Amino acid sequence: MLKTKELGEFGLINRISSHLEFRAANSIQSIGDDCAVYPVSAGANEVISTDAMVEDIHFKLSTTTPEALGRKALSISLSDIAAMGGTPKRALVTLGIPKKISVSFLDKLYSGFNDICNQFQVELAGGDTVSSPKCFFINVAVIGEAKNIFTRKGAKPGDLIFVTGTLGDSSLGLKLLKKKKRTSKDHRFLIQKHLDPTARIKEAGILSRSKISITSMIDISDGLVQDLYHICKSSNVGAQIHEESLPQSLEFVRTCNKNLVSPLPLILNGGEDYELLFTLPPDGVKKLNRQFLKAKALVTQIGEIVLKPKKVSLKLREGTTKTLQDSEGFNHF
Amino acid sequence: MLKTKELGEFGLINRISSHLEFRAANSIQSIGDDCAVYPVSAGANEVISTDAMVEDIHFKLSTTTPEALGRKALSISLSDIAAMGGTPKRALVTLGIPKKISVSFLDKLYSGFNDICNQFQVELAGGDTVSSPKCFFINVAVIGEAKNIFTRKGAKPGDLIFVTGTLGDSSLGLKLLKKKKRTSKDHRFLIQKHLDPTARIKEAGILSRSKISITSMIDISDGLVQDLYHICKSSNVGAQIHEESLPQSLEFVRTCNKNLVSPLPLILNGGEDYELLFTLPPDGVKKLNRQFLKAKALVTQIGEIVLKPKKVSLKLREGTTKTLQDSEGFNHF
Repeated sequence: MLKTKELGEFGLINRISSHLEFRAANSIQSIGDDCAVYPVSAGANEVISTDAMVEDIHFKLSTTTPEALGRKALSISLSDIAAMGGTPKRALVTLGIPKKISVSFLDKLYSGFNDICNQFQVELAGGDTVSSPKCFFINVAVIGEAKNIFTRKGAKPGDLIFVTGTLGDSSLGLKLLKKKKRTSKDHRFLIQKHLDPTARIKEAGILSRSKISITSMIDISDGLVQDLYHICKSSNVGAQIHEESLPQSLEFVRTCNKNLVSPLPLILNGGEDYELLFTLPPDGVKKLNRQFLKAKALVTQIGEIVLKPKKVSLKLREGTTKTLQDSEGFNHF
Repeated sequence: MLKTKELGEFGLINRISSHLEFRAANSIQSIGDDCAVYPVSAGANEVISTDAMVEDIHFKLSTTTPEALGRKALSISLSDIAAMGGTPKRALVTLGIPKKISVSFLDKLYSGFNDICNQFQVELAGGDTVSSPKCFFINVAVIGEAKNIFTRKGAKPGDLIFVTGTLGDSSLGLKLLKKKKRTSKDHRFLIQKHLDPTARIKEAGILSRSKISITSMIDISDGLVQDLYHICKSSNVGAQIHEESLPQSLEFVRTCNKNLVSPLPLILNGGEDYELLFTLPPDGVKKLNRQFLKAKALVTQIGEIVLKPKKVSLKLREGTTKTLQDSEGFNHF
């Protein structure tokens, strides 16, 4: 019996896709990117995506609050819309509810949904609530709009690679959460980044309106390296990133130093950063930096796209270069 | 601690809605009908809905096949689109997968999804597959298009009440399934109706194109009486239905007779029929019957809308009338 674990998530997605025969005549992008894309009118596209969180796999009730859980469940779906350069418009929420979940818990969970809906002007348009005795789960489907679609497949040799925000905070936060270390302000910051990430809707909006030629984009959910591999495979290119350029928060650096934790594995493979990773030709860099500075949003150039197909390498601080392995990231099975 | 069971599904939906502040300026229908509705262009609306199925609550792996399960998971979501008079266009499928589920099982499940997608020209546009050690669940979000929207709230006194297909088959099929009685052809027919219902997309299409003034519509998932109550409450009217008019399949009648099962509770409160229940003024009846006859689709007049608000009554064969209680249907908690 072939187990799902042996195929892995991406092998499973490929296998599943092979069963599906019907394709809409007007579909621009179907299975295989952050969102599926459909044209709705001249210059306007619909982008759709869905994401689920399961208790004890994606969260523990003992280490989060219902409000933060509601915010995260919505944010990770909105992040997929951001990854295509879209603006989220409406969401459908499904809850699988075991008996232990009280109405007061659900009130707080929905208060979390409401926070994010208000912040990003997203309407929670409906959903389904079902009894699920053995496990608590949340599924969010989101529909957004996008003028320009940024997929994974347009990166070209010579393009520069950028990332929003900082890397590794979420996975270090998760480590601290497991060790129940949350005494310092730094710890609380990192744990917060894990439990309550921000979807980069604002940054996606800057890119979409900027008229800079963004050649590819993805959100970092599986880890920098694995998500960069997704871009490289879809675009049939390679990438080189530079250790010295990888953006880290002060809180991350201090905590790694204090606890003698090696930062690089967390930055490269940590996962759940929900930052945007994207590429553009060098002539767009000045405009990009100016617009992010104006919006007080962090963006960092971390490397460049190279010809050598489907290989991601890291230039270390000391000067040598090593090839990074694919599938080192977070495997969902 | 207030338990979700005490609120019930509809109490919970009301409570949840009260937390949500942001409403899109262009939303036509939000939480509280089968689908949410948004205008996309002149005369065209987007209708969206989501439905989840959880193992041991909505299905048992020992009594269904993966193919039938895939077809049903998609069909019950498509049924919500039909209930608004819409045409389904694309779907997002989330699977929560425990270890016991093999790749071969998923192949068959997707073959079931593929059947329905081909039949109704629906693109399976993407989804999410997550590990869920304790329970197997399937969530389907569907996006459709509709010219004319049929909601629950336009029924008027004097309107006539119609239903597609036959009633009670699914719940009798479920009874047989639990008793492992599936020896006869009749039993297999009824079990099939439970395990593999047909979304009334074709019938919704007839109604949508007919230009008959359909004043309200819903699909029967909770049971005839409870779903008729949904129409009555939303429209602020009452309804009278006639025992002698309630459509039953031959297989249902024969099986009830043979097993001394009382048919009426199954017809009224059985649930999961996924037939369309709708209302129209008397002047549309001739056209309706002609069009359904032409399409070889079954439709039956079962009663009329009355002034007395929010009461559903049943006129029995012997002539007396009794008020039917609300919330007798399937309670999801």
